[in-house]
Amino acid sequence: MGLFFTLEGPDGSGKSTQIRRLAERLEESGIRYLTTREPGGTPISDKIRALLLDPDNREMTAKTEALLYAASRAQHVAQVIRPALEQGVVVICDRYIDASLAYQATGLGLSVDYVRELNREATDGLWPTRTYLIDVPAEVGIGRVARSRGAGLDRIEQRDLHYHGRVRDQFLQIAGEEPERFRVLDGTRSIDEVTDAIWEDVRQFLNAD
Amino acid sequence: MGLFFTLEGPDGSGKSTQIRRLAERLEESGIRYLTTREPGGTPISDKIRALLLDPDNREMTAKTEALLYAASRAQHVAQVIRPALEQGVVVICDRYIDASLAYQATGLGLSVDYVRELNREATDGLWPTRTYLIDVPAEVGIGRVARSRGAGLDRIEQRDLHYHGRVRDQFLQIAGEEPERFRVLDGTRSIDEVTDAIWEDVRQFLNAD
Repeated sequence: MGLFFTLEGPDGSGKSTQIRRLAERLEESGIRYLTTREPGGTPISDKIRALLLDPDNREMTAKTEALLYAASRAQHVAQVIRPALEQGVVVICDRYIDASLAYQATGLGLSVDYVRELNREATDGLWPTRTYLIDVPAEVGIGRVARSRGAGLDRIEQRDLHYHGRVRDQFLQIAGEEPERFRVLDGTRSIDEVTDAIWEDVRQFLNAD
Repeated sequence: MGLFFTLEGPDGSGKSTQIRRLAERLEESGIRYLTTREPGGTPISDKIRALLLDPDNREMTAKTEALLYAASRAQHVAQVIRPALEQGVVVICDRYIDASLAYQATGLGLSVDYVRELNREATDGLWPTRTYLIDVPAEVGIGRVARSRGAGLDRIEQRDLHYHGRVRDQFLQIAGEEPERFRVLDGTRSIDEVTDAIWEDVRQFLNAD
């Protein structure tokens, strides 16, 4: 099985940039890798993603949202992530189960146990080798998103700062409960510093592999 | 709480006709009722329904399918069914959890316990007052659908006769496990006979209510 890295963090934490940079370094090192993202990652998952992010779907309940994320993830794992890992490919995924624990469980008031079990079943128990949590204060993250996007936040981004604050707390809580799997990185540092910290850690796995 | 009736059975068993007739009789009796259907029943659920039935989505895994049905149902129960029941309205639903137990659990090889628990959580434990299972042999049901539709079966209908045979067996199995909730009706009888049998049973609930 290949190595499975996930990046988590609030919107605007810089995950996408870090994933692009990590991919470049893997490329330079001649390592077979695949970058993907959630929600999405397959044609079916992308259609589910569109439902999840459409601001028209305001009346969506917390449970429906959690179930749609799990459905999207089930397809993504079965069709893309697991087959790649089985071929020894390094998989880097932008968001995974931890995002559901933060956004749907704590953020929307569902029980963490319910959301974890839902996703454990959906993925047949596939957990990341390592998860990088890029931590930034909620107002910093949302401020970055709003500035870069201009108008047009999606359905999840439109939730208030209090929601995004609870999400951040929950990410830190989850990371604290699984110190072996998580590395928490200060996302207010320079982009280069965060990249270097991730790469240093990734290299240890590559050397051991 | 109002009475909650569901109709189950293979495609082509005549559920829609029976629901229309039951609605007419409730209408004539001056009873407040609501007819709805799964998958679907709300704008969000209808979008999920479109994903589920689109023949293009051939690579959809069994788990993704079960999770999408549960997501659609969670929204439907929270937004439509439960609010109506709380106002004392009689709700008649074309398919519900039992359909997932038959089509996704046995039909696609997921465990019945997994699918039942998934849906119990999704609906906060809302089970029908009474479920009418209209039983027809798989070849009769699919034959009727194919004749009435001409070309153009949906993604679920396109599965082979063996699949639809397993679904029928599973419906009968579930009904046998909950004899208090289920009434099994022979769908090869005349439409009028089936209507009369359903109405006779429904009336007992209305009189007791």
